[in-house]
Amino acid sequence: MNASAADLPRALAPHDRELLSPEQLEARLRAIGAERYHDKHPFHGLLHGGQLDRGQVQAWALNRFEYQRCIPLKDAALLARIEDPQLRRVWRQRIVDHDGEREGDGGIARWLHLTDALGLDRELVESGRALLPATRFAVQAYIHFVRERSLLEAIASSLTELFAPTIIGQRVAGMLANYDFVSPKALAYFDSRLHQAPQDANFALDYVKRHARTREQQDAVCDALRFKCEVLWSMLDALHLAYVEPRLIPPGAFDPRRMPS
Amino acid sequence: MNASAADLPRALAPHDRELLSPEQLEARLRAIGAERYHDKHPFHGLLHGGQLDRGQVQAWALNRFEYQRCIPLKDAALLARIEDPQLRRVWRQRIVDHDGEREGDGGIARWLHLTDALGLDRELVESGRALLPATRFAVQAYIHFVRERSLLEAIASSLTELFAPTIIGQRVAGMLANYDFVSPKALAYFDSRLHQAPQDANFALDYVKRHARTREQQDAVCDALRFKCEVLWSMLDALHLAYVEPRLIPPGAFDPRRMPS
Repeated sequence: MNASAADLPRALAPHDRELLSPEQLEARLRAIGAERYHDKHPFHGLLHGGQLDRGQVQAWALNRFEYQRCIPLKDAALLARIEDPQLRRVWRQRIVDHDGEREGDGGIARWLHLTDALGLDRELVESGRALLPATRFAVQAYIHFVRERSLLEAIASSLTELFAPTIIGQRVAGMLANYDFVSPKALAYFDSRLHQAPQDANFALDYVKRHARTREQQDAVCDALRFKCEVLWSMLDALHLAYVEPRLIPPGAFDPRRMPS
Repeated sequence: MNASAADLPRALAPHDRELLSPEQLEARLRAIGAERYHDKHPFHGLLHGGQLDRGQVQAWALNRFEYQRCIPLKDAALLARIEDPQLRRVWRQRIVDHDGEREGDGGIARWLHLTDALGLDRELVESGRALLPATRFAVQAYIHFVRERSLLEAIASSLTELFAPTIIGQRVAGMLANYDFVSPKALAYFDSRLHQAPQDANFALDYVKRHARTREQQDAVCDALRFKCEVLWSMLDALHLAYVEPRLIPPGAFDPRRMPS
């Protein structure tokens, strides 16, 4: 099938087809984030405002682990498509950041510190068997996007990290202030991401500004960022439906009421 | 990545590893449908019980069109993996059923009669631009499953059709009784599926009963059906969140309040 036509049809008015300057492109990307990044989702406000109970925070951490787990798979798929050794050297750092140098090191391991601190069973978290199906579908959509689209679009889909520092700051402050079951140590993942994410995002932003040389490519870059915002947003949608309102937990998914606390 | 480990981890107790008889396998498959088929979803009850307004039925038909649109893509991906001409001859009929013999014929065209009857703009429906992202992710997950898993699992994932006649019967009767904006002509799609679905399902059921020759294959067949139930269930989850409760419509998705009625 034609993945472009299937995933992201976007109609553009015929008059709006002129090449953007790199600065105009950046402004459009930032406008997409301002409208569609998941810091605008109600679940984000509830999480960081201390309005969730422990079971709801567990559900968030457990489902978000699936995203963390798949980030190096996504980056390896992207790495496998880069012809330029210089660009591969830069991009491979993302895999190092998530997988670490040894057992217990790296972003995935730090996320497991959080699920540990929340009292979730590691085997349950790592097995993925209590995930919301929508979480899995969204994360797989991200991996497939990076595998199947152009390298430019794959790199552009990482641009949500442009907006990560704000959300991470809110998350750490809000969770420490509001949840007695969350400690600074449990949130160590976010300390690392606070300096990794801007580096990664600035590199990717510079890349797409330099390599999107036609208006079609610039539109594809914007669509890739919209797509990625949809991935993150739909993960919070699924959590909201299952664990906030109307608490419609799909068959087989994590149910905090059935967990030993 | 290893798609099996990523998508469907299932732990089985060590004592539960004996080969099932074909009848036992069928009983397990029917039990999965009894628990997880989307006729158990609250949205189904609301839709067929006449408790939705026109905008909510529009949202359902618009999003479900994405599934209909992709069914022949899924079946073509499956067809492309079948070595046996005899099996290919049987399977290709599914593509004929959905695409028809000419413009305006077949299941996709009949679904568009429904969206027409509901007052949806065809260009909007066919463009896919107002879809819930979760709909797209679920449907793409189905296509990727069929592309990437074994032929046995790909065929097994079609087994939700075993449970379709009941839901179709409820749907047609319930929608005609409850919605004055739905006519028998608008529901012509379902008339065709009432005889196509059982034929297709019985063939696929017979196939998996004959070709799942190890317990691992039998478990994979059950997992494939669970996966497919999750695809359909998560589509109703997304509709429920956006259009029933708490009416959290993702950025860019169809909003009945903004439609001319």
